[in-house]
This record gives sequence, C-alpha cells and structure tokens, in this order.
Amino acid sequence: MANGTITAPRGFLAAGLSCGIKQSRKPDLGLIVCPTGAIVAAVFTTNKIIAAPVEISKRHLKSRTTYAIVANSGNANACTGRKGLADAVKMCKTAANEIEVNPHEVLVASTGIIGEKLPITKIVQGIKKASAKLSASPKAGLDFARAIMTTDTKPKQAKRNLTISGKKVTIAAAVKGAGMIAPNMATTLCFITTDIAIRKPLLAKALKNAIGNSLNKLTVDGHQSTNDTAIILASGLTGNRSIVSRCPRYKKFAAALADLCEDLAKQMALDAEGATRIFKVIIEGAATKAQAAFAARAVADYDLVKCAVHGADPNWGRIICAVGSCGVKINLAKLSCKIGNISVFRNGKPAKFNAAVVSRIIRSKEHTITVNLGAGTASDFCYGCDLSREYVTINADYHT
Amino acid sequence: MANGTITAPRGFLAAGLSCGIKQSRKPDLGLIVCPTGAIVAAVFTTNKIIAAPVEISKRHLKSRTTYAIVANSGNANACTGRKGLADAVKMCKTAANEIEVNPHEVLVASTGIIGEKLPITKIVQGIKKASAKLSASPKAGLDFARAIMTTDTKPKQAKRNLTISGKKVTIAAAVKGAGMIAPNMATTLCFITTDIAIRKPLLAKALKNAIGNSLNKLTVDGHQSTNDTAIILASGLTGNRSIVSRCPRYKKFAAALADLCEDLAKQMALDAEGATRIFKVIIEGAATKAQAAFAARAVADYDLVKCAVHGADPNWGRIICAVGSCGVKINLAKLSCKIGNISVFRNGKPAKFNAAVVSRIIRSKEHTITVNLGAGTASDFCYGCDLSREYVTINADYHT
Repeated sequence: MANGTITAPRGFLAAGLSCGIKQSRKPDLGLIVCPTGAIVAAVFTTNKIIAAPVEISKRHLKSRTTYAIVANSGNANACTGRKGLADAVKMCKTAANEIEVNPHEVLVASTGIIGEKLPITKIVQGIKKASAKLSASPKAGLDFARAIMTTDTKPKQAKRNLTISGKKVTIAAAVKGAGMIAPNMATTLCFITTDIAIRKPLLAKALKNAIGNSLNKLTVDGHQSTNDTAIILASGLTGNRSIVSRCPRYKKFAAALADLCEDLAKQMALDAEGATRIFKVIIEGAATKAQAAFAARAVADYDLVKCAVHGADPNWGRIICAVGSCGVKINLAKLSCKIGNISVFRNGKPAKFNAAVVSRIIRSKEHTITVNLGAGTASDFCYGCDLSREYVTINADYHT
Repeated sequence: MANGTITAPRGFLAAGLSCGIKQSRKPDLGLIVCPTGAIVAAVFTTNKIIAAPVEISKRHLKSRTTYAIVANSGNANACTGRKGLADAVKMCKTAANEIEVNPHEVLVASTGIIGEKLPITKIVQGIKKASAKLSASPKAGLDFARAIMTTDTKPKQAKRNLTISGKKVTIAAAVKGAGMIAPNMATTLCFITTDIAIRKPLLAKALKNAIGNSLNKLTVDGHQSTNDTAIILASGLTGNRSIVSRCPRYKKFAAALADLCEDLAKQMALDAEGATRIFKVIIEGAATKAQAAFAARAVADYDLVKCAVHGADPNWGRIICAVGSCGVKINLAKLSCKIGNISVFRNGKPAKFNAAVVSRIIRSKEHTITVNLGAGTASDFCYGCDLSREYVTINADYHT
C-alpha cells in the first residue's frame, strides 16, 4: 500500500503515542525526525497572545538546519508564563538529546487546553519512548497524525507527487483542527514534509503563499488561536538540482504545495464541529484585494449565512446584507450574486431563479457563493462551513 | 391604568392594524401622528445597501416640522429599485393626504422580507383605515407596537417621566427586532415620542448619543440591516421653556433618553432569536476608545463566547482569544479579565476562582464581562446575547 503520510517523502521518521496528557489515554505526543537535517519554514498565529511553543519555535526557526518537531495535544501551553517557556524548551532539549542534535535545531508545537501547565515529566518520558519508536512506516506517520488530534473526529492527511528535473518529489502533510474548536482548545497545527532540494527563502515563500490561500482562507468561527502553527521541512533527499530562483520548477512545486494545502483546508472545514458542508465565497469587482478578502470573510463568518447553508436555503438577502454592512466599497447598481452558477441577485435587483435547484446546489458537500461588488477589478476568496445545532451543543454543553 | 406606550407624551395619536402584507393576518401597518407638528431627529443604518424607506425618510428629515410616521412590517421594501422608492413616497403621500399635510412632512419605515415589491394597494387602503382609527389611548399605542413586529415574540415598549423647569416631561418608545433576525428580514425600528420643547440640533444630539450607547452597542449577530431606523418626535407640548443649549436641563433630558434606549436595547437582546440571557462586555485599559469598542464587539460577537454564556461556562480562554485575535493593542503582562466581579485572568495569567460561583453569575439574566487590555486608559462597552440551538433552528429551518 502506498504511504499517504508524512513519512512518505524521503528522509523522514515519525512516531505517535499516548504519554498521559489526555485523561482519555488517546494519543497525545508526536515526533517527526529528519536524521539528515532539513531546511525549514513556518508561519504562526497572528493572535497577539502567543503560546510558549510558538515563541520558542520562532526562535529556533533561525537555525540553519532543523532535525525534528515535537508536538503534543491535550494542553496548549498557552498563558502559562515563564514556566511555559521553560517547558517548551525542555521538550526541544529532550528530543534533541535523544537524536543527538542541538535543542535549537528542534521545533515544538502544542494544542489543547489554555492556561494549564504541561505535565512535563510525563511528556519527557513520552518523548524518550517516541524516539525509540521512530519509523518511516505509514503506520508511524498515521500515529503522528493521530497524536495531534483534539476534537478532530479523524486524522487529516494529504500527499502530492510531482516530478522536478526528472526526479520524483513528494510532499505530505498532517493537520489538526479548524478554528477555536473545542472550549479553551487552541487550534490549527499543520506539519508538512517534502524531499525536494530548495533554498530556505523560496521554501518560506512557497509555504506562505500556500497557507495564505488555504488555511488562512478558512474561517470556522473567525478567530486565530494562540497556537496556530504551520511548519514545512524539506530534506532535499530527492536529489534534484536545488531550486534557487523563482524558476518554472519553483512554480511547479509551489503549485503542488498550494494544492495540498487547499485539500487540507477543506478536510479541516468538513471536520469542523458540527459542520455538514463547506462553501467557498468568491468576491469579485472589489475596489482593492484587501476589501475583497474582508468581504469574503464577512460573508463566510456571518452566522445567518452559515445557518442558511445548513438549511440549504437560497437566502441571498443575508449574503447581500453581510456585504453591505462590512464596510467595503459597493456599486449597488452593479451588485450581483450567484449561488453555484445561478444568478440570484443581478445589478442591484433580485433575479428570478428556481429555488429548488439552488437549494440542491447548496446541499452538495461544497458549493460556491460569488458576489460581484461592481466597485473595481480586485478579487479574493474564503472558505466557510455551515453552523449547526451540534456546534452549539458541543460548545455550550462541554464544561471547562 | 398609566399609559406606557408612545401615545403617553402629550400630542401623539397612534394606530395599528393588519392590512394584509403578512399572510398570517397579524398587524403589519402602524401610524404615529403629531397633529400640532413635531421637531424630528433620526439615525439610520450604516449598511451600504439602504432600503427605499430609509432613503425617502432621510430626504424628508430636512423638513422643519414632521407630522407623522407610517411604518409597516412583513416587507422591508429593500433591494426594490425605483419602484421601491415610488412606493415609499406613495406611503408618505397617502398618510399626508389623510391628515392634510405635505408628503415631505411624513417619515416612512419598513421591515420584513428583502427584495419583494410592496403590496402597495393594500398598504394605501391600510393607511386610510389607520388614519380613521387614530387615538391617544394606550390601546392605540400598543396596536402600533404590535404592528411593527416581525419575529419579535412580544411588543417592546418603554417610558420615562422627568421634570424639566417644573413641567412633567414624558418620553416613550416602541421598538422591534434585534440583529438580522429572521431570514431575509430587515431589522431594527425604534420610534420615540416626547412632549419636551427642544431645538432640533439638540434633539438630534441627544438621540445620537442615546442610540450610540444602546441600540448601536447591541450585537446579536454583528450586522446592521438595510432598514435600521430610529426616529424621535418632540411635540413641545409640555410647555417647558425650550431647551436651546447644552444646559443642565438638556443633560437631564439626554440622560433620561439614554436610559430609555438602554432599556429598549436590553429588551431587544432578550427577545433575540433563541436568546436566553444577555451580557455586557466592558473593555478597559485600551489604547483608544475605538479599539475598546472594537474589542468589546469582538468578544460579544464571538460564537464561542456566546455558546459559553449559553452553557454558563466560565470559559475565560475564549474571551482572551477573542481579544487577542481582534487586532487591538494588548499588554499581556497586564491583561486581566473578570466575569461579574470575579477575577478569572489576572496580569497575563489564569486566576484561581470558584467555577460554580462564576457559572451562577453567568446563569443570571444579565452579567458583565470586563477585560482590561493594560494598553492605555480608554474604555467602551457592548451588549451581547447567548447563542442557542434555537437560533440555528430558527435560521436554518425557516425557508425563504
């Protein structure tokens, strides 16, 4: 069977296990190791309150080479002060000791409850056990994907193969979460491995672009958590001539990475709490790209739109209202809206349409809402998911 | 029995009836008349898509004297193009004819479904019938309050008495809705009557201030509708020496008006779809007042906070996350949060508290969340309500 996990690209080992952070004894500690050393790039949360592991990983990102990532779920190590920083460093040190590298050559990520101290003794033991279990098998990759889950109902992974300079390049990823999902849970972790040889600035550029058009375009409840982290490690073992400029080979790689990340974003949206379907909001005819992005989010974040999608209701009034009240420039005489490929509002006026047909479009797993603001030529998009009773149940009835 | 309706201040007549806009045959047309003529002030939606009645009322607001307001529910007359404007004018004309004034001395407001043409013939008949029924009785005032309801479960009214220069002044109001409540429904209408004598610019100032600290501080789902309208009519019949400056008498009146509007805002929040309780978010220690206002809204609009309030869960992590991700300046070392008067987060760290006690505070009809950003001295506030399964049910299962 083909390996569809983060151990698929050449040069990566992984492990995942339960070290006792979660009372449920579900897996809560994961390790990725690149024994030959990898080029690294990362993007982090823009929340002003930053968890300890994010702070430490930002520092360690400056190392020329990264050998490992240690990640835990069940506890976010956020709002934990100086002790939290020391614990995050301790996690890097323990992993570094096991694989005989420097602590600053290890990155760290955490997700789970905010404001509680890590059970660091258990975690240290867990890291030691995990390093003894490291393997390039698909099972090891899957174990890692499971170890980073919190309220996710299933592990989320993706893989892309491409050919660069006649060499087979693989990109693979494991992600968890979407939005500030469970109570006090901090959220999105994304780990990507690849065996391409590429310069660090270009890897960073490709990652930033891919995340910007996927995970950062996904809105479940409109907020970035204290812990959001996306890291890519490139082992270089595929043997291609290293990519050193924005050449066609770079573009091919960047496109594959973007495609992989879009796949991950959709998996996350569909696994968001209570979500039953996703939708893409495309804003066209905006005065500026920033306004297009803002309006797309305003529509995708609007509870009444999310409820209408849940009810498969072709309720263009809510879409128009969200766009109208979000503050972007609009030319009402040209304002138009489509659900799927059906016009529901055209040039400032309601269009005649078959409600049953549009309802059927919405009821599919994924549909598109396109709004033309008639105010310019800029466009942007965003992914959203529906709002269900289950979302409320999960988030109101779970007690901290 | 004391009159608690908009006919309580001297000089006002009202009526409300069903003219057949709503299939349910519930009241859908209301009329307020001040036969001696009133000074008027109004505030309207900031949504860029403005319903026809808002456009017409804005024009008519320039008249020196206003004699009547005609309002309907069941149809918002929004996104209805030139025909919509003509219909809104027709409503003013019909009412003006009945009471023998000029059309531009009548204001108009509508709420209900967006994008459908008004059944103008029925409405014209309704206005004629209503003008024949005009009365200063409490029943007439209540009939008006009922006529503007859409998904409101009860009519919402308030009254304040005060003494100005030894004269008894009365302020009364009828409101409907909160947020973009029902599918394709446009929302907040607020009509205030008073018998005080006051100059127009001061009436406008007092209204703007009162609405700014009440209805505009209320967030049910974070959006202004296409039809939001608040109008105050002052008959001047109380016989006080007219208020012509920001003297103590002005301040007394403005305070009473603000208090009345806060009362209305709370009634609206509690009658929001599925809401079971309300909360006030106070932001202190902000760098600017605008940042304080923005952060307050970010907390009150955050679905996870709304769900936590619904579940009476003292979940400070969600509050801190909302504040951290909304972009305002924060000093984490000083960041603090209280629920009621209990510290749950202090100087950047979780505080020890009795969860049962805090849960009891949240479970009351109204509680306060106070966040100090530690970044300055500005403050502001906002009202929110909880998010329940019922909200989703109402907004997903109702089909347009």
